[in-house]
Amino acid sequence: MVEVDELDWGKSGGLIPVVTQEADTLEVLTLAYADREALRLTLETGWAHYFRRSHGRVMKKGVTSGNVQRVRRVLTDCDNDALVYLVEQTGPACHLGNRTCFHKAVH
Amino acid sequence: MVEVDELDWGKSGGLIPVVTQEADTLEVLTLAYADREALRLTLETGWAHYFRRSHGRVMKKGVTSGNVQRVRRVLTDCDNDALVYLVEQTGPACHLGNRTCFHKAVH
Repeated sequence: MVEVDELDWGKSGGLIPVVTQEADTLEVLTLAYADREALRLTLETGWAHYFRRSHGRVMKKGVTSGNVQRVRRVLTDCDNDALVYLVEQTGPACHLGNRTCFHKAVH
Repeated sequence: MVEVDELDWGKSGGLIPVVTQEADTLEVLTLAYADREALRLTLETGWAHYFRRSHGRVMKKGVTSGNVQRVRRVLTDCDNDALVYLVEQTGPACHLGNRTCFHKAVH
């Protein structure tokens, strides 16, 4: 188990990238960011929170849309500088109405 | 389909985060970064390349360890500022010998 304070918050200016996966299917839904506050709120409440760079603040996912994410597990990697949220997604994860934000191929 | 030049390379100083998933199981293996060159080489060769921040340059995954990644698909998200590589991983993805880098719970 890793404590929140053991994560490498300094590497990217206090923000750590978060890969969010649907817990049952393992589909990747979004790539977002967490600061300490977002992660603390996620762990305490069991609802996914992110630091939204476009808003400049921590927000609960789905607070306006209702498309919330119940968090089953939070994982980090060997370098403690990335996170995975395994979630149960309500509704679409993508603000454009798609189930996942990752639906376009690059070529 | 999205072209390489359509991605949002400016947002994070020329680097875009890459979520790498095992194509069959959808397990997340690593969170890494690509610059244009890394993505171009990935698409051209079919082998995963990343910009390794600790080395300051583009490297083919597994070039020293042999733990290469055959890339089946590259996806981007609605904002064109994150990537998913769906790969067939040879050997462990993690340099510590674990199948995936994400094997520690945060609490």
